[in-house]
Amino acid sequence: TEAQDAPLLTELLEPLHPADIADLLEQVGSHDRRELLRLYGPEMDGEILTEIDESIREEVIEQLPAEVLAEAVRELDSDDVVDLIEDLEEPQQEAILEALDESDRAAVEQSLTWPEYSAGRLMQREVVTAPAHWTVGEAIDFLRAEEWLPDQFYHVVLVDPGHHPVGYVTLGKVLASKRDVALASITEDSFRTIWARQEEADVAYAFNQYHLISAPVVDDDDRLVGVITIDDAMNVLDEEHEEDILRLAGVGDESSISDSVAETVRQRLPWLMVNLLTAIIASGVIALFEGTIERLVALAVLMPIVASMGGNAGTQTLTVAVRALATKSLTESNVWRVIRREAVVGFANGAVFAAVMGAVAWVWFGAPELGVVIGVAMVINLFVAALAGIAVPLALERLGADPALASGTFVTTVTDVVGFFAFLGLAGLVLL
Amino acid sequence: TEAQDAPLLTELLEPLHPADIADLLEQVGSHDRRELLRLYGPEMDGEILTEIDESIREEVIEQLPAEVLAEAVRELDSDDVVDLIEDLEEPQQEAILEALDESDRAAVEQSLTWPEYSAGRLMQREVVTAPAHWTVGEAIDFLRAEEWLPDQFYHVVLVDPGHHPVGYVTLGKVLASKRDVALASITEDSFRTIWARQEEADVAYAFNQYHLISAPVVDDDDRLVGVITIDDAMNVLDEEHEEDILRLAGVGDESSISDSVAETVRQRLPWLMVNLLTAIIASGVIALFEGTIERLVALAVLMPIVASMGGNAGTQTLTVAVRALATKSLTESNVWRVIRREAVVGFANGAVFAAVMGAVAWVWFGAPELGVVIGVAMVINLFVAALAGIAVPLALERLGADPALASGTFVTTVTDVVGFFAFLGLAGLVLL
Repeated sequence: TEAQDAPLLTELLEPLHPADIADLLEQVGSHDRRELLRLYGPEMDGEILTEIDESIREEVIEQLPAEVLAEAVRELDSDDVVDLIEDLEEPQQEAILEALDESDRAAVEQSLTWPEYSAGRLMQREVVTAPAHWTVGEAIDFLRAEEWLPDQFYHVVLVDPGHHPVGYVTLGKVLASKRDVALASITEDSFRTIWARQEEADVAYAFNQYHLISAPVVDDDDRLVGVITIDDAMNVLDEEHEEDILRLAGVGDESSISDSVAETVRQRLPWLMVNLLTAIIASGVIALFEGTIERLVALAVLMPIVASMGGNAGTQTLTVAVRALATKSLTESNVWRVIRREAVVGFANGAVFAAVMGAVAWVWFGAPELGVVIGVAMVINLFVAALAGIAVPLALERLGADPALASGTFVTTVTDVVGFFAFLGLAGLVLL
Repeated sequence: TEAQDAPLLTELLEPLHPADIADLLEQVGSHDRRELLRLYGPEMDGEILTEIDESIREEVIEQLPAEVLAEAVRELDSDDVVDLIEDLEEPQQEAILEALDESDRAAVEQSLTWPEYSAGRLMQREVVTAPAHWTVGEAIDFLRAEEWLPDQFYHVVLVDPGHHPVGYVTLGKVLASKRDVALASITEDSFRTIWARQEEADVAYAFNQYHLISAPVVDDDDRLVGVITIDDAMNVLDEEHEEDILRLAGVGDESSISDSVAETVRQRLPWLMVNLLTAIIASGVIALFEGTIERLVALAVLMPIVASMGGNAGTQTLTVAVRALATKSLTESNVWRVIRREAVVGFANGAVFAAVMGAVAWVWFGAPELGVVIGVAMVINLFVAALAGIAVPLALERLGADPALASGTFVTTVTDVVGFFAFLGLAGLVLL
């Protein structure tokens, strides 16, 4: 019965990590989710809320009693509250802000003044600092006396009198050094600050590239305003990858396994519509050669092969280019070398498949000229595919757009149009 | 002149982070790289070597004088040496192992006994431990006396007399507690151990899911053998993503921007060859209907649209499924619900595009029956695309293969074959 279900459920979920409880809520259907929340709602804590995917977060928050929600968010650090509320609708945001203490609310509202997806939104405001002239002993005494230390911190940040960060010391070094050692003498070379307005994707890149564990965040006047730790950066890196992979496939970049049918259709329809338009353009090219096909129907059989090979080769180049741009390994210094490489590779692959497919077409239809035509069309299309595969993402990047977005559609449109045109046009000239 | 170039280059590179110097070596052409190494080689340190991409690591190591290489690897931690040499050829491996001290060599050889891509290969062997009964004061005195502390560590791991890890304490807690506090009273709830034979992808997942910073690694007898830190896990996560995205595009998963033309052709040809075979199969389906096309050439114009829409819709579903499997959010508990959702979405999208494309075909060719045929074929193909998009990666996962690998080729083969068959078959039945 109902009265027994709630304690039983609580007992079952008790040993689970909040992240696993959140996964459970994401994986069940929306009906079961409502039931779960009704029974487990009163036990819901802030950590579970922060772990819940954005796609169902609003739905879950709506179903929680106001006092449970207030209790849950009061336990959280300011950066987690920011992460929790930044995508919520106005009334839900208000409700959560009102549940916070005066000082926490001020901290959260302050964080929300930084641009979306900036380091300022990502950072936690609680930083452990020490005057740059302190010794290890002074730092230890301070830490022992302090009440409000953050759950996780890895460095003591040294600041000058103007509260500008000037270096940091790992906790390991503090622990391993004698009390009279000056903090300034055991700072790390890896020290670098992050500007609060920097994009979070660049922050994640810096953490990954330079093996940072934590980095102080500074405002426009170079004053310390917070700290970003590697787990936040890892999270961003994970989201950026997710976004790239979903965008390359033409799926809305917020799609999730827990989305409803309507939500999923809404995300995917626009991309399929774009694809329909480009497919119609490619068909228009075929229509130009209706007369040619009528006279030699083998062309209709073979033409998708030329287009398909071009599409695949273009996608290969495109994917490598998008990744190289994302990891900053495609730069001014090597862009021409990479373009040249892709062009040569496209030509070489084209030559290989021209020979293979030329032979296949000759044998299949007993017409050597048909083999020659499809071979030449293959070389042209794979060469163009390589150029389009690298040029399209580069152009999108220059225009300030995400190269992962829509690149695939542009490239396959080019390879379809060029493939059909080259193959059918050549056939019209040579064979008829 | 030559004599001036070397010091000038050293001065230019001096302020750069080793990771940036490695990027520079990756981004220049192979000729420039040889020149750079000739001039800068003697300054090369171990950190730069570990940052260099695998694709050029062998080439770089070959060009370094033996004594420079020996010097460089002697500075490194054992896990970095393992990472450096595990993919090298036998003779190069030998050369590096010989350069190490007796004890370091033993440590590296020991690590190499763990399976490839396991936690045992990823971990560093240097762990800071304390008997479980120690106080904060005893731990601090021990750390101050110890000579060999690792560069980066975040926890003191508590061990029992059998050297089994039983908990850990963050350095922050050690620093913030009085000397007489028992370490056992300030341990973290997040404590979990990792089995040395566990796959590194699962390790990365655990770090990301449970927000771990470091985790002790245990052998088959649950004894502590090393520790994995979050920066290693972040690296693995990054590589796993890279692999997924490249595999989905049918690009060799070790492809890199610094690969030569020959290397690039070698990686991409096999996938294009697979695609050629599947394209020929699809063409075979068209060939079955040559007679139909001959009598109504509009079919040749329209058929690529049906195939293309199916391919795109299938790729959308596929990508979402591959990501969901990688993030463990597609599980036994929700697999049927997700399959049902995809089927309904496929049907709904099919219905929308049936209406749109049916109308276009009617207007374009002035034949309402042609509109009906392409509409019905569209519904069939988008429905099948959805099912194939989820079934293929699930099947590959069940068979123990990577779902990202080859999924795309299977799915587009299905959508091409079904698309051509449905459209041309129906046309043959209805229109002629």
